[in-house]
Amino acid sequence: MPQRHSPPLITLLTDFGLKDHFVGVMKGVIAAIAPRARIIDLTHEIEPYQLCQARFVLAQSWTYFPKGTIHVAVVDPGVGTARRPILVETANHLFIGPDNGIFSDLLDLPKTRVRHIVNTKLFLSNVSATFHGRDIFAPVAAHLAAGVAASRVGPLVTDAIKLPPQRAMQTSERTWTGQVVSVDRFGNLITNLRLAELPDLTRRRFVLQLGSAQISALASNYASGPAGQAIAVAGSSGDLEIAINQDSAALRLGLGCGAPVEIALS
Amino acid sequence: MPQRHSPPLITLLTDFGLKDHFVGVMKGVIAAIAPRARIIDLTHEIEPYQLCQARFVLAQSWTYFPKGTIHVAVVDPGVGTARRPILVETANHLFIGPDNGIFSDLLDLPKTRVRHIVNTKLFLSNVSATFHGRDIFAPVAAHLAAGVAASRVGPLVTDAIKLPPQRAMQTSERTWTGQVVSVDRFGNLITNLRLAELPDLTRRRFVLQLGSAQISALASNYASGPAGQAIAVAGSSGDLEIAINQDSAALRLGLGCGAPVEIALS
Amino acid sequence: MPQRHSPPLITLLTDFGLKDHFVGVMKGVIAAIAPRARIIDLTHEIEPYQLCQARFVLAQSWTYFPKGTIHVAVVDPGVGTARRPILVETANHLFIGPDNGIFSDLLDLPKTRVRHIVNTKLFLSNVSATFHGRDIFAPVAAHLAAGVAASRVGPLVTDAIKLPPQRAMQTSERTWTGQVVSVDRFGNLITNLRLAELPDLTRRRFVLQLGSAQISALASNYASGPAGQAIAVAGSSGDLEIAINQDSAALRLGLGCGAPVEIALS
Repeated sequence: MPQRHSPPLITLLTDFGLKDHFVGVMKGVIAAIAPRARIIDLTHEIEPYQLCQARFVLAQSWTYFPKGTIHVAVVDPGVGTARRPILVETANHLFIGPDNGIFSDLLDLPKTRVRHIVNTKLFLSNVSATFHGRDIFAPVAAHLAAGVAASRVGPLVTDAIKLPPQRAMQTSERTWTGQVVSVDRFGNLITNLRLAELPDLTRRRFVLQLGSAQISALASNYASGPAGQAIAVAGSSGDLEIAINQDSAALRLGLGCGAPVEIALS
Repeated sequence: MPQRHSPPLITLLTDFGLKDHFVGVMKGVIAAIAPRARIIDLTHEIEPYQLCQARFVLAQSWTYFPKGTIHVAVVDPGVGTARRPILVETANHLFIGPDNGIFSDLLDLPKTRVRHIVNTKLFLSNVSATFHGRDIFAPVAAHLAAGVAASRVGPLVTDAIKLPPQRAMQTSERTWTGQVVSVDRFGNLITNLRLAELPDLTRRRFVLQLGSAQISALASNYASGPAGQAIAVAGSSGDLEIAINQDSAALRLGLGCGAPVEIALS
Repeated sequence: MPQRHSPPLITLLTDFGLKDHFVGVMKGVIAAIAPRARIIDLTHEIEPYQLCQARFVLAQSWTYFPKGTIHVAVVDPGVGTARRPILVETANHLFIGPDNGIFSDLLDLPKTRVRHIVNTKLFLSNVSATFHGRDIFAPVAAHLAAGVAASRVGPLVTDAIKLPPQRAMQTSERTWTGQVVSVDRFGNLITNLRLAELPDLTRRRFVLQLGSAQISALASNYASGPAGQAIAVAGSSGDLEIAINQDSAALRLGLGCGAPVEIALS
């Protein structure tokens, strides 16, 4: 029996929602060019134009996919303006989307390089002003999945837009600040404070301040703690998360993406 | 290594939503009959029973899919009544769903013909009164994907239900009327006025009236224009769309699907 | 040309929603381990922690899938606590999820057995406290799809948690009681009263009481009956459903999952 290669894999991340035809059409374009490519949705429910949320979802997701995966990310308030379409090549993955900072966190990885996508032969024959997901990003991804070399999309560039990292900082010997970078469906507040970069909070006294909430212990899971009280939990990616047992921390605390969080050891 | 054909492709378009088991079960039925068929969702978020919205999504989508694609569309207020299940064969695509006008826009295409689906051997063994998506449409699509000839579903018919086209009209030498045919997730109002069928609005003075909004210029993209002001934009399919930069035109103008739009040259 | 087996099939059922990265990441983990496995979503819109709703969706769905399907169900208020991950093997299907009663309805099926999943070689290398869907359930499912024997996940157990069946009862010679077990997207109230286990309601006089509604006839389809009046319909799975023609019975009657329903023959 002949050895068969794994089918190529394309992920999609957009703010298009699932109500309209946008996502389905992108998949149709991909299927017409690369019929064997597998397509996996990361999410299409990014709040319209919220780059920050899209960056977080991408950062949480892409490393779990197999080598060779092509990630298409279209959160693109500047569609139709002069912003460039780009291809980011990391050591083992490809990323396609607008040059608006959505791929900022990839640019410093070793062996990463960026191409300006200019080869119109890889686009649909008519490119609209408003739907580059269908007309540029999906077909370019599909051609790459079908075996077109990355070098054919266009020239290397070195000036891709890079937004400040979504990263927490140590502000003194005993204090750290970070931000909420996402609110999950349960209302848990996901911060960018990583436990591995903090002292062991299970062994040190500390106060975490997030809006009106003061938390001084790390709970072992979401189901800990009395009902209605905010708790800090080690999140699934090693991040510090703020939760309320079977309730929404976001609603209870009135906080969302961008809210500052501070930790002070005592 | 033997040449392998592309896997058969089935799209799904329903008003079932994603909360219940309906869509998953249809996919299970397809997988059991045609394990190699690929399934792509167009959308399942059509407002319940809104044929007009379903027709628009289908019209925007199907031509982007590869030849041979089988499209299943189930928006079916009459499920359980005497309305017929039908198969519409166009030159290169197949469409399966209820005979309620959802396929109206396909009936005048060259080489199109329609069959009344009557071959119960292609159905699930027990057909319920309320879930023909699972019991009739999904299994028939799967059998076609698995190689059953279209002629086996049932006899040709010539009286499929045909609703008025979703099309704009020229009402005088200098005026055109159309309608909003869809509201996208961002609140942009998609009209059925096609720019290719209008004078060049970038070179002519005109007034577009849509509810309380009067617009007299065509913007080049969604990001144009001062915040809060309605703009007209060339949509991704060549349609005229009404948008408000980073806001919802639908909410701001209080308009939805079916709202009339008029253009008058001056 | 060599005979090719059908690709392995994995279904996913969670309360993770589609807004976050959770579902996409689970699919990435599966694709990395079992690149040929097909993945079908049952739903990810279970209300957070609502086991009852998850049980209903699973019960309505799994029998329609082909033999050998692996069903992953993660509705898991106890994630991070001591609750066990389990594998339920029925005659032809596999089920993976937490031991919290979500699989109660499978435990009495013939040939069913249950394993405690303990083989950490089948997990991701770092298991978080909060995301067992990604770290345990998805990779175990993928390894099984890739050919690992079920016996390798861990030892058989006989004390899996079993919640009361979601089943209606006959309460006297002429009366039956049941419950609403689900509300579909259209607001139809799905009960666990099965028509096959009741007298033929099309030939007997009866009164059905559900909240403020009294219904005394079985309609043949959703489109029956005057607008605004509650009707009883034979649902797609043989269940008795309460609907209002082109309106939401749940909203009109103010009822939801768990509401009692009674039928009395006269």
